[in-house]
Amino acid sequence: MRGVVLHAPGDVRVEDRAEPAIVEPTDAVIRITATCICGSDLWPYRGIEKIGGPTPMGHEYVGVVEEIGSAVRALQVGDHVVGSFFASDNTCEICRAGYQSRCVHNVPIGSIGTQAERARIPLADGTLVPVPGVPTDAQLPHLLAASDVLGTGWFAAVAAEAGPGRTVAVVGDGAVGLLGVLAAKQLGADRIIAMSRHADRQALARKFGATDIVEERGDAGVARIRELTGGLGAHSVIEAVGTQESMQQAIRSARPGGHVGYVGVTHDVQLDGMELFFSGVHLHGGPAPVRRFLPDLIELIMRGEIDPGAVFDLALPLDEAAEGYRAMDRRRATKVLLTV
Amino acid sequence: MRGVVLHAPGDVRVEDRAEPAIVEPTDAVIRITATCICGSDLWPYRGIEKIGGPTPMGHEYVGVVEEIGSAVRALQVGDHVVGSFFASDNTCEICRAGYQSRCVHNVPIGSIGTQAERARIPLADGTLVPVPGVPTDAQLPHLLAASDVLGTGWFAAVAAEAGPGRTVAVVGDGAVGLLGVLAAKQLGADRIIAMSRHADRQALARKFGATDIVEERGDAGVARIRELTGGLGAHSVIEAVGTQESMQQAIRSARPGGHVGYVGVTHDVQLDGMELFFSGVHLHGGPAPVRRFLPDLIELIMRGEIDPGAVFDLALPLDEAAEGYRAMDRRRATKVLLTV
Repeated sequence: MRGVVLHAPGDVRVEDRAEPAIVEPTDAVIRITATCICGSDLWPYRGIEKIGGPTPMGHEYVGVVEEIGSAVRALQVGDHVVGSFFASDNTCEICRAGYQSRCVHNVPIGSIGTQAERARIPLADGTLVPVPGVPTDAQLPHLLAASDVLGTGWFAAVAAEAGPGRTVAVVGDGAVGLLGVLAAKQLGADRIIAMSRHADRQALARKFGATDIVEERGDAGVARIRELTGGLGAHSVIEAVGTQESMQQAIRSARPGGHVGYVGVTHDVQLDGMELFFSGVHLHGGPAPVRRFLPDLIELIMRGEIDPGAVFDLALPLDEAAEGYRAMDRRRATKVLLTV
Repeated sequence: MRGVVLHAPGDVRVEDRAEPAIVEPTDAVIRITATCICGSDLWPYRGIEKIGGPTPMGHEYVGVVEEIGSAVRALQVGDHVVGSFFASDNTCEICRAGYQSRCVHNVPIGSIGTQAERARIPLADGTLVPVPGVPTDAQLPHLLAASDVLGTGWFAAVAAEAGPGRTVAVVGDGAVGLLGVLAAKQLGADRIIAMSRHADRQALARKFGATDIVEERGDAGVARIRELTGGLGAHSVIEAVGTQESMQQAIRSARPGGHVGYVGVTHDVQLDGMELFFSGVHLHGGPAPVRRFLPDLIELIMRGEIDPGAVFDLALPLDEAAEGYRAMDRRRATKVLLTV
């Protein structure tokens, strides 16, 4: 089958990979119908995360079940399914508490590589959520977004306790930040402040429910959030970048007792204990347990209530994945969908 | 009046200070009936926190109202009262959300110095909570504990979401950690693991409700907590020390999705963003909003249901405060009560 392999920083190739097959009785093999490139794929692409040799890429996917192992009970061949970037049994104590990304048996899907025609999905019963019926072509990008960026933005909004009566600030205007705006709106937040200085992303943020735009960054951005919140800071802050500056901006934008939900992968971030102590915020985040939210997200999408796939601003055939990486690396695209 | 003044590291004197008087119409002047020395008083005593000159000391107190300003409505002269280490109006948006230690008008009581015969308490209506009737001598130490160490341990337990069905680990066996054990017990935790290597503190932890004692520290302590929790880590961890090692130990002792409540003042702590991200914990803490809990704590004490004053293992007259500081500095005492 065809699949994306990263050979070295900047060197993305689409080449023949071994056909996946059932290994464990709890596995399924799916034919992938759409996949995409993640902001986190750019870390190894840019050489910031080292790779140990040619590496299959991708961890976002929607597909159709082609084969199931003998222990799979909840899925049938032909089911249209969405999964997230961690396989999880969905039955252990950690999964039952809603932290499937930290399942005691978790398998990172990134180690499998879903920018490909097919993939073996471990712990299929726990990992894959069937879509009712057959999604239309128009629904596919929305379902694909649920696989990671929507689920991650949603988790950030939940971790930030976005909801009625609350003002939510969103640090980061990438796909996850924008979908954090959408999630905050769906969760009933009164006011949603998107921090962005790009006109196209501001427009999408407004479409998703942002009530205010703040263009300033760093301390000036924090000052603007305070101005907009009677000097107190936001109740809820979504952090969707993962840098020292963005984490500080998020913590400083929240009021004492407020909640910061952070989902940007925090490379080289050091949090000063004294500043955090006196901030008085609640801090929660990490790799999003997208599986917790998938059933609800799929339902919202299939009912046409949300359109998270609007974050994809470039679609390319799988064979042109290298161009997709370049477009995201050079910020010509926010999020690239690969058709299979 | 007599009061404790720190002149330089290690140089504690009890000397004549100006009599406090009503300055703002919202003030009260109280006669202090008991006060004590806080672990945080040792920071300047040890020269780790710099002082700018002779500094009145103390922020924990119970007392009797002697005089009230013209705008005070909720208190009467003669009321026995407990307050916490921040004066707060208890009416602003931050107070109403339960974060009175970050009241928009907060005044740190440490700037007033309650290791003295009397004190002016700002924002008296919001700050001071009357005790029903006249407390007995036996009840005084318990009420004094509520002023800071109990309220702080309680906040840590609430921040750690201690409660039914949950296993709580407590890092730190000082007065706050021990009262975190008591709070976790009162909040209904199933299992409470106290981390302590001192026999007397272990005994008090057991008296307060600890079900298990872990003597190991650092990574060995973390490994022991994991052993005791089926490899997963505790649901709730109370951090009551405030060092790099104790914060790491707390975060590593919690399961993914678990809650860490931290109240140790975090001097020179740096949290690694990547480790925090992948820990998946909820982190909340800071200067405890003791005022939130005072009415309930006073009620529990007056009904005889809790005896937090057991953390005081040395009582001295105010005039012997210097000996009290020495005893705590050299760890001959956990917590020193000063009678006035």
